[in-house]
Amino acid sequence: MTFKYNNVYLNNTGTVTGPYEANGPLSKYFDKSYQDLYFGMKTWEQAESKLIENSVDILLNKLKKTRFDIDLFIAGDLLNQIASSNYAAASLGIPYFGIYSACATSVAGLILGANMIEAKQIKNCITAVSSHNNGAEKQFRYPVEYGGPKPKTTTFTTTGGASAYLSSEKQGVKVESATVGVVTDLGVKDVFHMGAVMAPAAAATIYKHLTDTKREIGYYDLVVTGDLGVYGKEILKEYMQTEYGIELRHYEDTGVMIYDRKDQPVYAGASGPACAPLVTYGYIVNKMKKKELNRVLVVATGALHSPTMVNQKLSIPGVAHAISLEAME
Amino acid sequence: MTFKYNNVYLNNTGTVTGPYEANGPLSKYFDKSYQDLYFGMKTWEQAESKLIENSVDILLNKLKKTRFDIDLFIAGDLLNQIASSNYAAASLGIPYFGIYSACATSVAGLILGANMIEAKQIKNCITAVSSHNNGAEKQFRYPVEYGGPKPKTTTFTTTGGASAYLSSEKQGVKVESATVGVVTDLGVKDVFHMGAVMAPAAAATIYKHLTDTKREIGYYDLVVTGDLGVYGKEILKEYMQTEYGIELRHYEDTGVMIYDRKDQPVYAGASGPACAPLVTYGYIVNKMKKKELNRVLVVATGALHSPTMVNQKLSIPGVAHAISLEAME
Repeated sequence: MTFKYNNVYLNNTGTVTGPYEANGPLSKYFDKSYQDLYFGMKTWEQAESKLIENSVDILLNKLKKTRFDIDLFIAGDLLNQIASSNYAAASLGIPYFGIYSACATSVAGLILGANMIEAKQIKNCITAVSSHNNGAEKQFRYPVEYGGPKPKTTTFTTTGGASAYLSSEKQGVKVESATVGVVTDLGVKDVFHMGAVMAPAAAATIYKHLTDTKREIGYYDLVVTGDLGVYGKEILKEYMQTEYGIELRHYEDTGVMIYDRKDQPVYAGASGPACAPLVTYGYIVNKMKKKELNRVLVVATGALHSPTMVNQKLSIPGVAHAISLEAME
Repeated sequence: MTFKYNNVYLNNTGTVTGPYEANGPLSKYFDKSYQDLYFGMKTWEQAESKLIENSVDILLNKLKKTRFDIDLFIAGDLLNQIASSNYAAASLGIPYFGIYSACATSVAGLILGANMIEAKQIKNCITAVSSHNNGAEKQFRYPVEYGGPKPKTTTFTTTGGASAYLSSEKQGVKVESATVGVVTDLGVKDVFHMGAVMAPAAAATIYKHLTDTKREIGYYDLVVTGDLGVYGKEILKEYMQTEYGIELRHYEDTGVMIYDRKDQPVYAGASGPACAPLVTYGYIVNKMKKKELNRVLVVATGALHSPTMVNQKLSIPGVAHAISLEAME
């Protein structure tokens, strides 16, 4: 399902990260970073919720608006019951939709908001996501204190909160079109290889987007997935070529971009719902405002990993949602 | 945030339940019921996912359509990572948004779908939810096999799957308007008293809906919450009166309607995302088609209960989303 927009703009963003992201190559593009993982809170889960609140506060400050000026808040995260988003929503008091698409959540939120702005059903919205390395590891794999060894295909959950403000005001970056993905399940059961889970979903969504918009892949200055990691990135390139006959050039993955794998212990790269929007809002939008990039297709990829279902020997479904951003003329 | 619709109809529905619902007073209104809790699957979680698939299959059969005729699938449930919905989406292969608003999820899905249909962004959609008593008890409280005693304010999670088909075709019931709720948190920490968590959220959303639409409560033949249970229902009536000066007449709660509390061991009544839509799609829509009810405000209420956050001594936020349904002229 592809939507076309004539009147939606990503006006501004707010990004907050933990220490690993602050020590990575994109450090200077983030609005705020903490040097520990608690941010003054008592637990990782409460710290994660604070990341969303912080990112919204920063965004509202940039916009010179208050939360009472915002029509709708759309958010999601990796915690069970999307607790980080729910508690942030309770604190914000803005009418709220909670969403869940794992690491594809940021683009799902952008699409839902953009649809309502295009239709003039809302004047504006803020859409946010978060993830927290220790919170996610504890919930999905093992507490990091166990120090268990991991295979090299493992990705490292990003710690961050990222918010975007959408409206019909012509400022920032244009939201041009978007494609809602189909859930794919090719039978991968390896919880340490999420790139393999998500790559086929990313390929299907990219192909569907190009078909629906009647575009060639070269239309885009950059196609960026988030977050497949180094191995998932290679799988996608190969899968895209063999399955759809499309050669991915000018292609990057946010899971590879946000850390320096030579100096940081992040295995195959980054993951987590915050990864794609941190890189997109912090780095890519910045480049688009400077016209160094003009047309970008952001493909957020989510592994719909349920530890309960994996323990029951089911495979892990994946999904990807794509949004096309254009620099302002 | 209140949306007004001129061109959206709830054309048809599919409802599937477990044995408790089949033995309750609304039994004859459900499309299909199972007499056990496994439905031929090996686990409760997989059984729950089957409930969604079943309800969609029944709905597609009624519509004489296939899944390839459906533009969008919007679904959510109580399982961590909304696993029931994700696996159903993988099996259906329809472009998919996952959502989470606990027991308010059904109306959140209706609103998101209705907005896109009103704006002609999609031709149609199916929105679905599920819940499973044993799956939910295991995840949120204790496995039922423990047989732990519970206070009388406890609600009993409904086992069911419920799907609705929305389009702009004038058939079924008109979707007239909807109000997106704000997350409220009045400090309740009692996981056995969700009615108390959700009642203030329901009150705030009802009041906001009436204010935005400039209506008196008497405009509606029926205001129905789902699912506060018997104690939450009384709390809402009192809170609505004292906080907003509104007397709730012609008011019911789906958590009270779906079971017979005299004969069934369900404590304060029903809960779970499936409760409100089972009663609405099965019973209320039926009455509306017969013109026994003409204007109904369905207020789905969700306790955004995170066991992790409650273990950390945080209180439980609540949210409610409302949708106004009208009988066809």
